[in-house]
Amino acid sequence: MRFISETSDSDVSEILFTLDDVPGVLWRSEGSVGPRPLILMGHGGGQHKTAPGIAGRARRFVTEGGFAVVAVDVPGHGERPKHEEYNRIATENRARVDAGEEMAPLMARFQAFVAHQTVPEWRAVLDAVQELEHVGAGPVGYWGISLGCGLGVPFVAAEPRVRAAVLGLGGALAAAEAAARITCPVEFLMQWDDERVPRPHSLALFEAFGSAEKTLHANPGKHAELPEFELDSALRFFGRHLV
Amino acid sequence: MRFISETSDSDVSEILFTLDDVPGVLWRSEGSVGPRPLILMGHGGGQHKTAPGIAGRARRFVTEGGFAVVAVDVPGHGERPKHEEYNRIATENRARVDAGEEMAPLMARFQAFVAHQTVPEWRAVLDAVQELEHVGAGPVGYWGISLGCGLGVPFVAAEPRVRAAVLGLGGALAAAEAAARITCPVEFLMQWDDERVPRPHSLALFEAFGSAEKTLHANPGKHAELPEFELDSALRFFGRHLV
Repeated sequence: MRFISETSDSDVSEILFTLDDVPGVLWRSEGSVGPRPLILMGHGGGQHKTAPGIAGRARRFVTEGGFAVVAVDVPGHGERPKHEEYNRIATENRARVDAGEEMAPLMARFQAFVAHQTVPEWRAVLDAVQELEHVGAGPVGYWGISLGCGLGVPFVAAEPRVRAAVLGLGGALAAAEAAARITCPVEFLMQWDDERVPRPHSLALFEAFGSAEKTLHANPGKHAELPEFELDSALRFFGRHLV
Repeated sequence: MRFISETSDSDVSEILFTLDDVPGVLWRSEGSVGPRPLILMGHGGGQHKTAPGIAGRARRFVTEGGFAVVAVDVPGHGERPKHEEYNRIATENRARVDAGEEMAPLMARFQAFVAHQTVPEWRAVLDAVQELEHVGAGPVGYWGISLGCGLGVPFVAAEPRVRAAVLGLGGALAAAEAAARITCPVEFLMQWDDERVPRPHSLALFEAFGSAEKTLHANPGKHAELPEFELDSALRFFGRHLV
């Protein structure tokens, strides 16, 4: 783990690092000492580890929940080089959608393919970050919607350190088998009028989670219109299960 | 409004009253003065105004939310006399279910019929309670699940004073038309494995609400297995919209 920089804003430190060739960011309360629960966040498609939707939520997890938060760039995103094979598949998928094919199954297959790379990357990030004195080997939460759900479901299924997960804006097409292996509490967010994830796919993914405690939160609106108050709910959910 | 008794327990006053021939109960913070937001609660089938599921929640609404809470016995329940016509229909419905008919449509039709009586009763209770110095004419919330949803949907649709409603464990069969007239924020609770309300009926009722802000909370388990943490959520929901 190589540290690049540390900046501070409103009592939150933002530490940029790389682990092998994966660029990452860790947020923590400025000057915090001793171990604390950690949340790993997965960003959305076309976004990156410090996109506003990630950084803004991370800061609230730090300041209001007392968590440390870590996020890394998904291959082909943020500071990572273009990924030729992923680019080729993405271009091909766009052409197939333009030709009238359904988007959801193509996107699901693509995300499942990328997860073969991100699951081991994210597990290595957990290993490294948990070595830090101000994080430690305590409970871990996962937060990820859209692409962060598609990659998050196989990650949470594979990673026993994750004790609670907020997932959403994803469907069952590629993820149902992995979802069935998830046993930690899940808060699952669904947009009722999601133009990218058909309603039955969302309901089927919720159905598929193996967890005894799982809650579906559905709100009206399109894919990008998740209401603000769901972040309050996520904070309380993590507080209930990780603290 | 005729006051029967006032008892106090852990700083919560429980005031029994009757309004015409409707027995009711009002909970409020002991010694509270001045107006405060009010929550009207509708009890479940076979229960009554001070059943543990009502009284326990009401006390938390009072102590943690600062609300006044009122509940009344539904006709044929609690301290109210047996209602011959309702009894006859209930008996007839049981026989039809035993003979193989589906329960949900029968229950829905029955609840819609009872609502013709309870909607005006509950509105009169609001009128009377809002006259009290320690309640006042401020914002009103409604909380009701199961029968409390079946009777609550037409009540909330008819009553513009209700600014936020927690409803749940009910289906669209009888209530969809009234639900479409509801415009206040709604938190709608659904049990994913509800043995009384078929899953598509619950989803259809959520779909039917006319409200711009509505959230579906679905949890695994049967009709009576609503998780405790949904009460925390209801408290915050009312806090957000009524305070």
